Amino acid sequence: MARPELQSGEFGLIAKYFAPLAKDPGAFGLKDDAAILPKRPGYDLVVTKDAIVEGVHYLASDPLDTVAQKLLRVNVSDLAAKGAMPAGYLLMTAFAKHTQEKSVALFARGLARDQAVYGLSLWGGDTVATPGPPSFSCTMMGWVKAGRMLRRSGARPGDETWVTGTIGDSGEGLALLRAGAAANDPKTRALIKAYRIPNPPAAFGALLPGLASAAMDVSDGLIQDAGHMAAASGVALSLDFASIPLSLALLSRNRSGKDARLKACAAGDDYQILFAAAPKMAKAILAAAAHTKTRVTRIGAISKGRGVTVLSPSGEPIALSKRGYTHF
Amino acid sequence: MARPELQSGEFGLIAKYFAPLAKDPGAFGLKDDAAILPKRPGYDLVVTKDAIVEGVHYLASDPLDTVAQKLLRVNVSDLAAKGAMPAGYLLMTAFAKHTQEKSVALFARGLARDQAVYGLSLWGGDTVATPGPPSFSCTMMGWVKAGRMLRRSGARPGDETWVTGTIGDSGEGLALLRAGAAANDPKTRALIKAYRIPNPPAAFGALLPGLASAAMDVSDGLIQDAGHMAAASGVALSLDFASIPLSLALLSRNRSGKDARLKACAAGDDYQILFAAAPKMAKAILAAAAHTKTRVTRIGAISKGRGVTVLSPSGEPIALSKRGYTHF
Repeated sequence: MARPELQSGEFGLIAKYFAPLAKDPGAFGLKDDAAILPKRPGYDLVVTKDAIVEGVHYLASDPLDTVAQKLLRVNVSDLAAKGAMPAGYLLMTAFAKHTQEKSVALFARGLARDQAVYGLSLWGGDTVATPGPPSFSCTMMGWVKAGRMLRRSGARPGDETWVTGTIGDSGEGLALLRAGAAANDPKTRALIKAYRIPNPPAAFGALLPGLASAAMDVSDGLIQDAGHMAAASGVALSLDFASIPLSLALLSRNRSGKDARLKACAAGDDYQILFAAAPKMAKAILAAAAHTKTRVTRIGAISKGRGVTVLSPSGEPIALSKRGYTHF
Repeated sequence: MARPELQSGEFGLIAKYFAPLAKDPGAFGLKDDAAILPKRPGYDLVVTKDAIVEGVHYLASDPLDTVAQKLLRVNVSDLAAKGAMPAGYLLMTAFAKHTQEKSVALFARGLARDQAVYGLSLWGGDTVATPGPPSFSCTMMGWVKAGRMLRRSGARPGDETWVTGTIGDSGEGLALLRAGAAANDPKTRALIKAYRIPNPPAAFGALLPGLASAAMDVSDGLIQDAGHMAAASGVALSLDFASIPLSLALLSRNRSGKDARLKACAAGDDYQILFAAAPKMAKAILAAAAHTKTRVTRIGAISKGRGVTVLSPSGEPIALSKRGYTHF
């Protein structure tokens, strides 16, 4: 395939933009066919893999440094929800025919920025060409104390349900971008940023083992993902509709909190942690949240049964027309 | 994105076609956000990542079970060249809008077949949609005794250069497919098979630590890849043109061995192992090859200096117009 726009070619791009991101000795400066994974006595290496595709998981108009950050952060989100501390990643980049080399450079700058934020190293990967839209896949690994990885399946009747951060901001940011909104006020900027550069609670997640009984990341909509936890744990989750945490930016764009929450429940890309914990853990959870400057909200209860029920302040079930977001 | 062809949706596809491939306890049946990597005392876990894109690394007309096999085998090839035994992998599938569910089922059957061939387990992954052509990325891991991973950089003056299998078959198979050749004779079928389902010498590769001083897989053309080894090792490689191993199938399609070798040197996708070894290792190398029913050929010598020289039987350098194949 002729690639006049990417004059450096595959090996040149790797040497110029990606090798400088691979400082760990086991990565061999990306000059070999493979890397050696690090070992850490007393820890498990937890692995996850998430991919993003232009037009599906991000918009063609999103700057490529933020695309790189989103790629890393959707994976950091999975690790944080498992109680794991990010360590390193492998990267597949499929740049499009029209991709310019300066875009590759911008993408690499986004990677460098978030490697510093999360303490990540690049351990390897593959750089390929595609006749289609650009896409990127990341395999990320992180450390958790041996045997302490949080599962989706550990929630027990009597536990409380919690969520980090606020819900729905990213979905609203996507709606604003699709509508062509200009980011000329702080609230609009905050919502667009929530879509482009999600902010998974990595430091808080690393403190959750020992506190939470189950955890998962919220990426496909709060209610749908709560359903996954209920199914994996074999329990029933009830969520207090009014307690679902919203940002002031999101509230300001809706006629009522109810309207905002209905939309938020069906939006995707929150990259927060939904977790269950015994009531006696509440104090320690709030301390961990304060220590890591993370907002946490108790949003419901867990009982015997199955499925997710959303309850109004008066305790009546609320029927939701849309329970999640599908990227597929 | 509306996906009428893939009625099961993302979660349904994973449950139906991919979860049955994930039997290791650390994969949690693909029902969690992440997996826990296995540990093996005294061994390193070696990791590689290779992706394939329709129209770049395989043809739209290639059956999807062979595409799945090619995806796994290009990664097995990297591990084999490092002396590592395949253990498990994570998989990103980006199916196109027009992909039918029966194609996903066929792809999964190809994975199952090669999981059995190489002793692999599926450890996790991501299933996304793409508006472009299908693409697949694999992160594969394998075991090698601690500290024994073969590098590209270990070749020393005085070593001999070897290669496994035959060179150029895959390139000829690709040319036949592009010309619309019918696979109605065994030689044509063998060449097409070499392109669609490469056969990396996994068992032989696992015996190479302790025998070889350097190794890498041949995927971008023998001469170009030999250049990578020469550069990484800081040595000069001379290759005996006439000793480059060719299959009878390839020879039968060319006027002369010379014509066939010139083409073979510039073809890609061989997925054989190029390695360097001290002359005293020759006997053990031939024994390992016999034990694993692997063809190996001594194709050159290593000396002080840099770069790759291809020598005629009379010892004259041969100028090659094309030294490799680019997928980019």
